[in-house]
Amino acid sequence: MKARVIVTLKAGVLDPQGKAIEGALRSLGVEGVAGVRQGKVFDVELDAADRAEAEAQLKAACEKLLANLVIENFAIEIA
Amino acid sequence: MKARVIVTLKAGVLDPQGKAIEGALRSLGVEGVAGVRQGKVFDVELDAADRAEAEAQLKAACEKLLANLVIENFAIEIA
Repeated sequence: MKARVIVTLKAGVLDPQGKAIEGALRSLGVEGVAGVRQGKVFDVELDAADRAEAEAQLKAACEKLLANLVIENFAIEIA
Repeated sequence: MKARVIVTLKAGVLDPQGKAIEGALRSLGVEGVAGVRQGKVFDVELDAADRAEAEAQLKAACEKLLANLVIENFAIEIA
């Protein structure tokens, strides 16, 4: 079973990396960019019997390793 | 206009970071993980008149900065 986990910074958490990308895009002549925030994506291949089991495994993975829940949110998409 | 750009490694490109995450999840007792590949996500706020203009701006951003087209694919989602 294939799944995608997207980890993004919570609102209000500063994102200097995103700010740098925003500035770089402007320098490169890409117009209309008003803001950038960077996050992480994990494409996970799972051996799970059903979607509920897959979701439980991914939730555990996020809480234990993939996301820092103090400053990050995660979203799970199961294909 | 809000948009999300997802940059992932092309198939066949080695992903040692993903392999390390896979091993770490196994060590932490998360079961059923058969593979992990890590990518990047960019949440972009755009000043664009319409979806076509937004898509053109994002495509330029990906080609110029966000993705390395030799080893990475990108996908654009406009909200």
